[in-house]
Amino acid sequence: MSAPIGIAGLGLMGGSLALALARAGTAVLGFDPAAAVRAAASSRGLAIVDSPRELMACDLLFVAAPLGRLPEVFATLADFPGVVSDLGSTKGPVVRAGEGAFGGRFVGGHPMAGTEQVGFAGADADLLTGATWVLTPTPRTDAAAMNTVRQTLAPLGVRLIEMSPAAHDEGVAAISHLPYLVACALAETARRQDGQTTLQQLAAGGFRDTTRLAKANSELGRDMCLTNGDALRRLIPQLQAVLADWQARIAAGDQDGLDAALGGIADWRRAFDQKVTP
Amino acid sequence: MSAPIGIAGLGLMGGSLALALARAGTAVLGFDPAAAVRAAASSRGLAIVDSPRELMACDLLFVAAPLGRLPEVFATLADFPGVVSDLGSTKGPVVRAGEGAFGGRFVGGHPMAGTEQVGFAGADADLLTGATWVLTPTPRTDAAAMNTVRQTLAPLGVRLIEMSPAAHDEGVAAISHLPYLVACALAETARRQDGQTTLQQLAAGGFRDTTRLAKANSELGRDMCLTNGDALRRLIPQLQAVLADWQARIAAGDQDGLDAALGGIADWRRAFDQKVTP
Repeated sequence: MSAPIGIAGLGLMGGSLALALARAGTAVLGFDPAAAVRAAASSRGLAIVDSPRELMACDLLFVAAPLGRLPEVFATLADFPGVVSDLGSTKGPVVRAGEGAFGGRFVGGHPMAGTEQVGFAGADADLLTGATWVLTPTPRTDAAAMNTVRQTLAPLGVRLIEMSPAAHDEGVAAISHLPYLVACALAETARRQDGQTTLQQLAAGGFRDTTRLAKANSELGRDMCLTNGDALRRLIPQLQAVLADWQARIAAGDQDGLDAALGGIADWRRAFDQKVTP
Repeated sequence: MSAPIGIAGLGLMGGSLALALARAGTAVLGFDPAAAVRAAASSRGLAIVDSPRELMACDLLFVAAPLGRLPEVFATLADFPGVVSDLGSTKGPVVRAGEGAFGGRFVGGHPMAGTEQVGFAGADADLLTGATWVLTPTPRTDAAAMNTVRQTLAPLGVRLIEMSPAAHDEGVAAISHLPYLVACALAETARRQDGQTTLQQLAAGGFRDTTRLAKANSELGRDMCLTNGDALRRLIPQLQAVLADWQARIAAGDQDGLDAALGGIADWRRAFDQKVTP
């Protein structure tokens, strides 16, 4: 391809994608609505345009707007003639909006990576290295559009996998969105206790690890909850039922029951690590 | 002190303490009920005895038995004439049992460190370096006994702090025991979903961090739950109420309410990190 790859939105993910593509030798053209972000991106060597209209000559455009704003941004770019993809962490509603605007030229995508950093200041060409990048084609998706996206991402050292938008959203609800909410709920529960100084003195690695996700971009967190609400409203009660069961076992002093439950989970969680490690 | 420091129980924590003390030049005498553990400890250079009775000449004895077995081990050692301390992660019932057996010569202690390793095989002289070590004296505790424990631990590079057994147990319930249970509940919820292969493909650092504690020694986990049950039975419903509130906001599409809640928690959690880092 001769035309540069367009990237609309240079936050943590869009910025990291732009830096990674540029480092891999791919021509990139970036845009962000914030002038300060455009200046920062330009000072890190990226080719930047001052209007999204200047991206129209690209063959492929990644829209890296905040998750909750993707549908409206798609609508404003609906006359873009090339292939469009995105980086949003919920796919069902995003793919519906993308196909509404771009038809089979839209390919939903979600790179499974992140940090507590927010915005272009945290963007890093290495953030995506080795990450799983989910593509969520539908029966409507053009094969040529899929190929374009795949070939563009291949040089980044990401692991490309495909699944349906629904399977993706069910999976990330359990593996990402619920863990985020629970990390926040644990932090909130600790915050409500008396004796914050004592808590800080006592906090070891366990609390920090378990609640690390609570430091993430809370606007993204809110959008994940709202765009994947059906799955979360199914999973939250499941988690609460597990906790209620264990609370009853604690109250009853049910040593054998707790042993069986906690031992089985430890085995499962250790095996989970074994399987996902390449 | 001329007599060696006795350590009864050479699992992860007792073994790590023995190795750390020996490395710091303190004479140590260790015992474990398992012959294989005694052999392993001996092969790593520790002085080991074959019967707990041989520890009676020590001036200070750390009882590092499993949390749930500390009271019965204290009872079997009740004629020990010196100072006794422990490493258990709940302090109220342990300190009651310790004072019942040893009176003012008992000093409750809890080093805030751990790994997913289990047993002497995971013991490491560096595990305790830099850790916070809580001592939980009561009005009954002898000042001389406190001094003995403090002076023994000082060379290990640990941060010694003091609080009451009740304050300790309330604190660790929020900062350690509830996070452990919640990590297990999250793992259990993920385990109950269909599509384990999909979950493994999607799992990034967030799930691994949030559920890492679920890999811990589940017998210790069970004992933490049972010995600190009152605090957990107060905290579990608090966490469930937070989740229920958020679930209602998700169902209602309450963007502003979620924003305020999640944003406030992100701020608190970031500040918490700032304050606890030395």
